[in-house]
Order: sequence, then C-alpha cells, then structure tokens
Amino acid sequence: MALGEFELIARYFTGDRFAYQPGAGVVLGVGDDCAILRVPDGEDLLVSIDTLVAGVHFPARLDPAHIAHRALAVNLSDLAAMGARPLWFTLALTLPAIDEHWLAAFADALAVLAQRFGIALVGGDTTSGPLSITIQVHGAAPAGSALRRSGARPADEVWVSGTPGLAALGLRHVLAGSRDTVAARTFLRPEPRIALGSALRGVASAAIDVSDGLLADAAHIAERSRVALVIEPRQLPLAPELAALAGRDDALSLALGGGDDYELCFTAAPGRAPAIETIAAGLGVACTRIGRVEAGEGARCTGFVPRRAGYRHFADD
Amino acid sequence: MALGEFELIARYFTGDRFAYQPGAGVVLGVGDDCAILRVPDGEDLLVSIDTLVAGVHFPARLDPAHIAHRALAVNLSDLAAMGARPLWFTLALTLPAIDEHWLAAFADALAVLAQRFGIALVGGDTTSGPLSITIQVHGAAPAGSALRRSGARPADEVWVSGTPGLAALGLRHVLAGSRDTVAARTFLRPEPRIALGSALRGVASAAIDVSDGLLADAAHIAERSRVALVIEPRQLPLAPELAALAGRDDALSLALGGGDDYELCFTAAPGRAPAIETIAAGLGVACTRIGRVEAGEGARCTGFVPRRAGYRHFADD
Repeated sequence: MALGEFELIARYFTGDRFAYQPGAGVVLGVGDDCAILRVPDGEDLLVSIDTLVAGVHFPARLDPAHIAHRALAVNLSDLAAMGARPLWFTLALTLPAIDEHWLAAFADALAVLAQRFGIALVGGDTTSGPLSITIQVHGAAPAGSALRRSGARPADEVWVSGTPGLAALGLRHVLAGSRDTVAARTFLRPEPRIALGSALRGVASAAIDVSDGLLADAAHIAERSRVALVIEPRQLPLAPELAALAGRDDALSLALGGGDDYELCFTAAPGRAPAIETIAAGLGVACTRIGRVEAGEGARCTGFVPRRAGYRHFADD
Repeated sequence: MALGEFELIARYFTGDRFAYQPGAGVVLGVGDDCAILRVPDGEDLLVSIDTLVAGVHFPARLDPAHIAHRALAVNLSDLAAMGARPLWFTLALTLPAIDEHWLAAFADALAVLAQRFGIALVGGDTTSGPLSITIQVHGAAPAGSALRRSGARPADEVWVSGTPGLAALGLRHVLAGSRDTVAARTFLRPEPRIALGSALRGVASAAIDVSDGLLADAAHIAERSRVALVIEPRQLPLAPELAALAGRDDALSLALGGGDDYELCFTAAPGRAPAIETIAAGLGVACTRIGRVEAGEGARCTGFVPRRAGYRHFADD
C-alpha cells in the first residue's frame, strides 16, 4: 500500500469527529494495542459484530458514503434491537487499494452517522485484500434490562416499526440504476431504531431487528421464545410505493420476506398497547400491531406464503 | 451456501467448548442480536480487533487449524501487551464456500486455544466471500493498571521476551514447504504472552507486542512515549536456528525486522530488573535486556541497519 496503516488511521479515522465524547468511558482510544474502556456502573455491556463484503452485501461500486452508513447502521440496529445505548465501535477495514477519495468519502459518512448516534470510534485494523468492512458496536443498558428474542409469551401482540419491505423494493430500484426514490433512499440509508429500542425496555417482551426479512426474523423470536408468531397480512403497514406495486402478492412478499429493513419487530402484552402508541407518537416512528403470539412454533402469515422466506445476498440474486 | 448461517453457528461455534466459563461475565452469549456481558467491578475493559486475509496474512492453503490458532493468538497477543486478562471474543468469518472438513478443523483448533486462555466465544457473523477472519478480543485489567506504549522514560531499560526473528525464519521454512522445524512451529503456532503481560503490570513502564518486527514495534513505543529506544545488537537473544544461519547480518535482520513474533517488547526502570528476572523465571519465559531508553525519538540498533524495517505482508513477498 502506498499509504501505510498507521498514516491511514491517523489521517482518516482519528480526531474529534470520531471521539467527540471524551467523557463517555473512553480511557484510551485508537493508537495502542487495545482500547481501554470503562462500562458505566450498574450497566451491562452489549456487543455485536457484522461484516459487509463487496459484491455480497452491497454492490462493489456503491458510493463509499453509502457503504459506510450501511456498515455502521446495521450494527447500530443490533444495539437498537436489544434496547442498548451506543457507546463505542471498532472498524476492521480491508481494502484492495488505497484510494484517498474513496477513503475520505467513507470516513466522512462514517463520522456523520457516528456523531448522530453518539458512538465513538475506539480502535480498528486496516488490511489489504478484497473490499470488506467489519464493525463491532458496543452499547450499554441498565443491568438485566436489555431486550431479548426470548421473552415472547402466548397472547402477546406482535408489532413492527416503519414499513417493512420498502428497503427491498429500494434495492430493486438501486440495481435498476435509480437512487432517487423513497424506497432507494430507505435501502441506501437505513435508520437504526435506537431511540425506539431504548424506549421499549420494560415495555416489549421480546425484540429483534428486521435484517433477514420480517417473517424470518419473527421466526427467530418464535424459536428463542418457544412460541408461534402469527402475522395478519391485512395489518401489515405497506409504504405507498409498495402498495402501488401492480401485484399485491409482490408487495406482501417484499414486506414479509424482503431484508434490509432494520426496523424493529417486537412483542408485548396487549395491555402495553397504549404505552407503545405513546412512545411511537413521541418519537415520530410508526409502530403497527401486525399479529399475535400463540402456543406452538415458527412464524407464519395467515393465508399467505411469501415468495421467499428471508434475505438472500447479492451474490445469490 | 448449502449450510445456512444459523446452522453453521449452531454446529461449529456453540456449545460448552466455547463457553466453558459460565461465571465469567457472560449474561447472554451467541444467539441474539447482541451478546450481553458484564465487566467485573473495578476493572477496565480492553478491546482489540484484527483481520487476517487469506493470501495476505497467511497462505490460503494453510491448514485451517493453523489459521484459527493464528487468528485468535494474534488478538490475544494484543491483550498480553496491555497486561489484560482474556474474557470474551467475537468471530466474523468470511468463507468462499462451506467446507465442513475445513470448518470442523478450524473450530476445533479455535476451541483448544480459547480454552487454554479462558476466553469465551460470545458472538459472531458468518458471510460468504473471500476467506478472511476478523476476531475482536475483550479483556479486563484493574482500573488504571493496563500497560501502554506511552510510559517509557529516559534511563529505562528495553526488554524483549523469547527469541525475536525465529517466527520470520519459520515463515521462510513454511514457504519452502517445511513445517517441522522449531522455527516453522513458532511461526505457525504463536504463543501469546498473556501471563507475562499480566505479571508486568506495575513493573514495566511501557509495552507492545512484536507483530511488525522488533525495531518497528520499538519505534511505536518511542513515538507514543516521546523518547528514543536504542537496541544493542550483541544483546539480542538469538534462537539457535537463527544463530546458525550463514550470515550474521541475516540473523540480526530477522531478529530486528522480522514480524509475527508475538513476543513482548517492554521498558522498565533499571531497578525493576530483579523483579522481571523473577517473573521470567517463574513463568519459564526468557526475558532479555536488549537496550535502553534515551531522550530523542525513534528506535535504532547500534551499528546495524536491518534489511527491512518492519513486517510486510505475504502479498508483498
């Protein structure tokens, strides 16, 4: 590499824009063998790691700003699903070559999203190889309060935030060359539901983020909770672009099976509905009841079998 | 992929062998959106992330057991350099295809090393793409006690554990097809100096692990401590295989410039020498005084310029 690892980190990935919260438990950030971090007293540490590979999780020629946004947003979404507050992240970046324009755009977009969610970059690694981005996020929640997939009980209601399926429609638009539709923007710049996840601690009985597709992710709650989740297709909130599709089956298949939504699917006792509606109104995030929890297993949609049951990578499409 | 991500994790990367320490702060391990972890009271959290890319950091056809050992060992070495006790790790594994023999051998070797060092696998991600392994390790040390690169002071002495350069000689052997030499085994199965690092807390003034090459890593201590590190070539501990090389310059170049040693280079006040010798004898790890800290900057070797100043990846060789 023309620019060595140390210079690269110093030039693009340090400075105030990545560490603007000096009080947030960062004893020592980038620049030693490890970062030294302090978890707030009485809080649990929550961690999640995700890799995005060019040509698999995103088209290799995608704008580096969108790649950076997606790489951090999908990880933040895992914190959101557990109701955790973002604290720190690490970045392992594998690059085929040093392209300073690419790096500057990537780092700028990463910094913008990191600042919005108050998460500091505390360490990383840069290597040469096929383009790939691995991010680990670290968050905190009061001890014992994190939301899990395992808490759904029969008679609970199933909810979803936002309009699932819109991102999958957006991917179609992007692959067809259009990036200016609402759907395309939803796909390109997923919005992790951090505030919603935090507000749902103590309210929801189980939660997951919708990355593989609503029905597939609902099935993960079902499996961990040892219950069945039943979704009513008529209750699904369809975004206007989705509702306008020629085939209703296509719209429902996208809503139930399309990945990349990064909305939250959660369950809650029926008595919690007013609290959830208050939270949703306060945050300006739509939350819709879409079904119920029953004894049994798996996730299904009443009277409808979507074309595909979960997310599949670019490479498979 | 024939075997989906969820089945893959369940089959190879869960179970007692990866989570044999149920009391060690793991509230919730693999299987939800995040792991939930609890850092011991009064301790700092230390984290480090490293990526190994096939063809760059290791030959793509290297035995998967060696790949797994190396991927975890180089990360544990970062904890060792800070004097941290290993707690947990996450694994992001990118695979070109699902090869169950490869995965079984990889997971077995990973479990063996993880158990030896008491580190639990708490989360991960598997994706399809060019072979690459990213591991993040998490450790703990009493608050404020972690070793750093920044504490070296003029008049301190410079020390190194083991016999630097042996791993670089081992890489030559491996590339030439020989895996049975002491040097080759040193390269293939680096031994993170966890016990030594912990014992040096409160004794060493600065420390780093030797991954880029002794002189290059000494230069990192020099930079962070704003001092100069001067190494005496006559004091360098040469392994017998290294000393037996035809050219003394070649041996010294490997010892000073060869990477992959994963020994510790550290500094300490002269009065600490007896304590260090006691620690070294107790652990059965050779520690050798190899130079001194002076006012100034950079790291140099008296009367000798090694052929290359630091580690270069396979792709460059």
